[in-house]
Amino acid sequence: MTSPYQLLTKDPSSQARAGILTTRRGIIETPIFMPVGTQATVKAVSPDELHALGAPIILGNTYHLHVRPGESLIKELGGLHHFMQWNRSILTDSGGFQVFSLARLRKITEEGVHFQNHLDGTPTFISPEVSMQIQRDLGSDIVMVFDECPPYPCEHDAMKTSLERTLRWAQRCKEFWNQEKNKPLVFGIVQGGSHDDLRKHSAEALVEIGFDGYAVGGVSVGEPESEMMQAIEASTPYLPEHAPRYAMGLGTPPQMVEMVARGIDMFDCVLPTRLARNGTAFTEQGTLHLKNAPFARDTSPIEEGCTCPACEKFTRAYIRHLVKAEEILGLRLISLHNLHFYLNLMRRTRRAILEGTFSQFRNTFVSNYRKHSESIS
Amino acid sequence: MTSPYQLLTKDPSSQARAGILTTRRGIIETPIFMPVGTQATVKAVSPDELHALGAPIILGNTYHLHVRPGESLIKELGGLHHFMQWNRSILTDSGGFQVFSLARLRKITEEGVHFQNHLDGTPTFISPEVSMQIQRDLGSDIVMVFDECPPYPCEHDAMKTSLERTLRWAQRCKEFWNQEKNKPLVFGIVQGGSHDDLRKHSAEALVEIGFDGYAVGGVSVGEPESEMMQAIEASTPYLPEHAPRYAMGLGTPPQMVEMVARGIDMFDCVLPTRLARNGTAFTEQGTLHLKNAPFARDTSPIEEGCTCPACEKFTRAYIRHLVKAEEILGLRLISLHNLHFYLNLMRRTRRAILEGTFSQFRNTFVSNYRKHSESIS
Repeated sequence: MTSPYQLLTKDPSSQARAGILTTRRGIIETPIFMPVGTQATVKAVSPDELHALGAPIILGNTYHLHVRPGESLIKELGGLHHFMQWNRSILTDSGGFQVFSLARLRKITEEGVHFQNHLDGTPTFISPEVSMQIQRDLGSDIVMVFDECPPYPCEHDAMKTSLERTLRWAQRCKEFWNQEKNKPLVFGIVQGGSHDDLRKHSAEALVEIGFDGYAVGGVSVGEPESEMMQAIEASTPYLPEHAPRYAMGLGTPPQMVEMVARGIDMFDCVLPTRLARNGTAFTEQGTLHLKNAPFARDTSPIEEGCTCPACEKFTRAYIRHLVKAEEILGLRLISLHNLHFYLNLMRRTRRAILEGTFSQFRNTFVSNYRKHSESIS
Repeated sequence: MTSPYQLLTKDPSSQARAGILTTRRGIIETPIFMPVGTQATVKAVSPDELHALGAPIILGNTYHLHVRPGESLIKELGGLHHFMQWNRSILTDSGGFQVFSLARLRKITEEGVHFQNHLDGTPTFISPEVSMQIQRDLGSDIVMVFDECPPYPCEHDAMKTSLERTLRWAQRCKEFWNQEKNKPLVFGIVQGGSHDDLRKHSAEALVEIGFDGYAVGGVSVGEPESEMMQAIEASTPYLPEHAPRYAMGLGTPPQMVEMVARGIDMFDCVLPTRLARNGTAFTEQGTLHLKNAPFARDTSPIEEGCTCPACEKFTRAYIRHLVKAEEILGLRLISLHNLHFYLNLMRRTRRAILEGTFSQFRNTFVSNYRKHSESIS
């Protein structure tokens, strides 16, 4: 199996790496942040705007798209890329996380999961094969294996039982693609919760099956940040250097930089768009709550020197007014800024790795962000 | 007083006219539709998008901007144009309509109106002079006189009493600008409800005072369409040909074309953006309710041949999905389409007048729109 990932540079002071991931729709320079397009749109943002922000890949949610509008409709209309007019790469998750966090009346069997969807309670069944079929019909460029996501905390025995089934499911996901032509990339997902031995076991077993890339799942599910980092550290040593590594569903800007230092290449997170809808912007100095009164007459942009479409034209005072008045343009502008911030943070991180200055960049960025964060928030 | 309005062509079959209105920020080809930017933004749309749609002028609401964020803040930050980054013309209404439709505990005196604002009940006072001062501080290019807007229906005697006060207020508004340098255009507003003699009296009295343009107010306030047209017909004969005429707060596409035929040059209406937020799009064949099931697999654009940003890229099926999933991009796309439809309808109307084909255009457009409207709606 040839790897879709080319490792360019390793940072001497940490596990950080700069590389290039190639999908059938183009190349992705890593480390990379992937904006989340749950329901066939990154919330409040158009495909043209995402292009302009320089996003080479976005994420789609298998569970949500299966429930509405359904993958058969999307397939009939030419696939997810054509449906939403996005011609760069798309990664789809497996639906596992949503089945275990959103759906009702779940029943897990060896075959798969029966549940009622969160919208109208329709009885639904997703198995490893069904998840692969949905992701195939969507036309995803990177598909994720279907996994069980136990809630946090989860005891060792229960986690081990779940993990073993998830590994059998991973094997079935892998086999699904044997009969398929025009394969996407297929990523395995390391589970094991906060148990180091299970993380190791999971990673080794997945590598044995063999995937194009490996994610660390079951993180950012309510555990303390130290355990989150520990889950990464307990997984990456057992993953091959020539494969991309993806930490699912996180995080804050410093968390991402810290995870890059622990060998992670790919991230997705709803924070940039979710916090934008609440009037919160990310900056080098932590988050800004733009509803706050001190911004009423503030004629500076969200962040000085920022080249995003919001900062190039609009003041904090104007955006604050829009947020207070509940005008959609307000959350549009903050969404653009936040997505730019996340995308650009990974571009800067990559540049630092390539230039051999990652250690300094990491220290400065993380301490600066955390120092100011509390005073401004 | 030199007129800001240049009459280019009169349609031989009706009162329709094509002209050019010049404000201190540029020229406006009439007939024109003005998108409504109530709270310093046209809802869901950015200034760049409005530019691209070819809008030469938008409307701002004096009442709303006075209540939040306040004209003193906007003035301090460089005026409304700079605040919202819109460098073309802005017309502001006088606040009269909102004071009489939104505000609470109203008390009308000869001096002005005391009320509590609709947001937090703050006691507020707006007089003709206060309205002019607010519009001046906003930096409006076309200001409207402060008028009383009696509810529909209103008996002759009550309307006459109200109208006489409104005329005295119009005189005070006119006088306000005598001491001012760098004057905007100032428009009078014909009132009189459904009473033809009062419309005539109002128009003649306003012309006697002398304004840069004349609006017909107190229309689209719940009266039948026939009375709306009657109110226009009872007003325009008494307005000077060399001044622009503006029908306030309306209407549907056929209503606008019919009003152009009755001598109206300018319109503003919230329908394009308001209906968009409910999933309704305007087309040549009436309105489309994009939530409806038949659009689920419809791969055509909202309207064939339309050159708006929504129709150039996206299908009805995708936009329907976005609307059903309550995604902001859905209402953004329909807002762009609807604003394009309204702006383009006036461009087509103008062209028809200039080319001498207005009569045919009017008949075809209105009958086509109304014929299909009911079957699709």
